[in-house]
Amino acid sequence: MVSGAIVDLDGTVYRGDDLIPGAAAGVDALREHGCGLCFFSNNPTKDGAAYVDRLRELGVDAREGEACSAGVATARYLADHHAGDPVLLVGDEGLAEQLRAADVRLTDDPAEASVLLGSWTNDFDYYDMMAAMDAVEEDTVFLGSDPDRAIPYDDGRLIPGSGAIVGALARTVGREPDRILGKPSDVARDLALDRLGLSAADAADCLVVGDRLDTDLLLGERAGMTTVLVLSGVTDRADLADSDVEPDYVLENLGEIGTLLRDE
Amino acid sequence: MVSGAIVDLDGTVYRGDDLIPGAAAGVDALREHGCGLCFFSNNPTKDGAAYVDRLRELGVDAREGEACSAGVATARYLADHHAGDPVLLVGDEGLAEQLRAADVRLTDDPAEASVLLGSWTNDFDYYDMMAAMDAVEEDTVFLGSDPDRAIPYDDGRLIPGSGAIVGALARTVGREPDRILGKPSDVARDLALDRLGLSAADAADCLVVGDRLDTDLLLGERAGMTTVLVLSGVTDRADLADSDVEPDYVLENLGEIGTLLRDE
Repeated sequence: MVSGAIVDLDGTVYRGDDLIPGAAAGVDALREHGCGLCFFSNNPTKDGAAYVDRLRELGVDAREGEACSAGVATARYLADHHAGDPVLLVGDEGLAEQLRAADVRLTDDPAEASVLLGSWTNDFDYYDMMAAMDAVEEDTVFLGSDPDRAIPYDDGRLIPGSGAIVGALARTVGREPDRILGKPSDVARDLALDRLGLSAADAADCLVVGDRLDTDLLLGERAGMTTVLVLSGVTDRADLADSDVEPDYVLENLGEIGTLLRDE
Repeated sequence: MVSGAIVDLDGTVYRGDDLIPGAAAGVDALREHGCGLCFFSNNPTKDGAAYVDRLRELGVDAREGEACSAGVATARYLADHHAGDPVLLVGDEGLAEQLRAADVRLTDDPAEASVLLGSWTNDFDYYDMMAAMDAVEEDTVFLGSDPDRAIPYDDGRLIPGSGAIVGALARTVGREPDRILGKPSDVARDLALDRLGLSAADAADCLVVGDRLDTDLLLGERAGMTTVLVLSGVTDRADLADSDVEPDYVLENLGEIGTLLRDE
């Protein structure tokens, strides 16, 4: 019995500004099947409410509290584990706002920082690398908001994502991050299960649907969820053949999810 | 019989704007011993002539043609192996000038580039990462000018070097560079031996003196040269104890080289 679904957004429900054909019907089918829904974007710059608004504008039946993001996961992790610790953020103002709203303490002073957080920002430059080098001592906690190296831009081309910037910081300070939040992390998994009202023991009753093998599908595979790859985003059948992650189901798009639920 | 010496500059002859005590006398001792001299900086932004001028200003007996740099090695490699190929440089204008002087063809257009060259520049930003992502296809040659991750700044603090920027580009495009020039590369070794009028078979007659285990000393160790670590730069005895590279001699500074030559 499927009781919850973690549904990726970019590449799964929409692509840039356009709804993927069938996606709204797929969401309806999940709901009719009695599934709880957690829409989860690995974009760290917006919070859950922004995604609910965006989905509604596109004609998708999304309800308050049903969406979250790598930004939400990052803010929650910092609030839970680094309350009061000065955090040097190399990232976007959209993430900074989410962190401030969660009472995370941000600092611009590398000498004061005990946490370095890397994330996507198109303001990234050499002086951020200098600040990271100044901030990172042996006991500095180094985090990344999400691992996505390349992200689709409006015109379809790929541009550097958080993963590229976190990687740039890693190569600057000479060590890898201690933890990367967002999908496929345990923090993202637990956040999604919480939103669905499920415990880790219920993971087998949860679907995860997405277009990325290394984030959406890997999260689901590790947690023992039923994994569904959609081919409407960044992954094609050739990528799938090369992958260590093996989805339980492969659909052309989210619109086909109804068939899968009926066959269950 | 020592017939040639490759002498590092920053941390070996000078530190920032200051001559390291004894360094001028050390250079004189090498010359009196009949050693040919090749001063070699891993800073890619200046050419050999600039270093000869700088050494003379500091009171060191340096002669025309005796200095080279990671910039010289990079320009030579590109002229020898990529003549006419459009090169997208993410690096400093000082390196661009050396490349143009060597008739390397530079381009600002990622779509046209067949070589991506990463190097130090404090102008590095997100748009360079975008350009690299646009430029790099499967057959694009990806080069770095030198591997130095952290470099000493005038005030003694470390700032990100070419290695950090090349690493940032590597994490952006999702693959490591095909080749990194400067020390300890074979290209740098061959350039230095050429300048000294020595062949690879003569390497055993060559000293390499420097303050960095992973560049100066590694170049010498791989080539079968006599390696001399000076403790006047970035390496202390604790670093040495942790290192796989084992210098033949360890001196407090270049001023002690005369003793070593007399004992030979």
